[in-house]
Amino acid sequence: MSSDELMRRVIRLAEENVRAKLGGPFAAIVSKNGEIVAEGTNLVTSTNDPTAHAELVAIRRACVAISSFQLVGLELYTSCEPCPMCLGAIYWARPSAIYYGATHNDAAAAGFDDSFIYEQTRLPVTQRAIPMRQALSDEAQSPFAVWRNTAGTIPY
Amino acid sequence: MSSDELMRRVIRLAEENVRAKLGGPFAAIVSKNGEIVAEGTNLVTSTNDPTAHAELVAIRRACVAISSFQLVGLELYTSCEPCPMCLGAIYWARPSAIYYGATHNDAAAAGFDDSFIYEQTRLPVTQRAIPMRQALSDEAQSPFAVWRNTAGTIPY
Repeated sequence: MSSDELMRRVIRLAEENVRAKLGGPFAAIVSKNGEIVAEGTNLVTSTNDPTAHAELVAIRRACVAISSFQLVGLELYTSCEPCPMCLGAIYWARPSAIYYGATHNDAAAAGFDDSFIYEQTRLPVTQRAIPMRQALSDEAQSPFAVWRNTAGTIPY
Repeated sequence: MSSDELMRRVIRLAEENVRAKLGGPFAAIVSKNGEIVAEGTNLVTSTNDPTAHAELVAIRRACVAISSFQLVGLELYTSCEPCPMCLGAIYWARPSAIYYGATHNDAAAAGFDDSFIYEQTRLPVTQRAIPMRQALSDEAQSPFAVWRNTAGTIPY
């Protein structure tokens, strides 16, 4: 499928997701050389999973499909510009390119405003709206010591 | 359990996760009034899921446990300061407070450096390391139109 064909399909999946009452108006596809590897739609409200945004669902399914926690060489198509959570997931999964349809401003106009979250990620820990408190900072080093002293761990 | 007791437990879970070869040295707990609602550890490499960071796993399990896509009134304990993906997930889930042990600098010293991802989320779309290309921006508005015209949708 061409790039435009994949984008048209992802837009149609987003529409169908709303009609099926599965969640918000968002969909994503992971593809390789124009072939679809996995598809995902927003399933937040139907599965009680606030992390089930279309991009995360598609990334998770694609990683299962190719038995890897990396999507190097694959491309992500999403009906709308990713939110900060999804952008973070994309960077951990490392696809080679992202194609998106609508912008985050379009999403905000429809009631899905992630600009607050983008702003929060830019603030120092002490200034964020959800209080963040550090505790037992010395003891919390020990998992890293275990990591360094354990043979056969897999970096990611 | 007291705040320190929950933090000690989450640190121990992070250590055990490494020894069990399930993933990175990270764990998280969602609690309500000192009671544990759900626990999660990093499962990236054992499940081929780049989104299976401890916080996301704990949030997803907690939401299943309380049958809600919101964690209002609950608290999140994490062995280490959240990465951008996890911070985004936290803001979508909306717990009332976050307690963390190690800092992202501690994690970076152990080889888990998310500062690159934080930097990327702050850059304009056109300047990011993974190329982002907009396509079919007009057609991509239609899922939002379907959303507005569909009765009984659930905002989140």
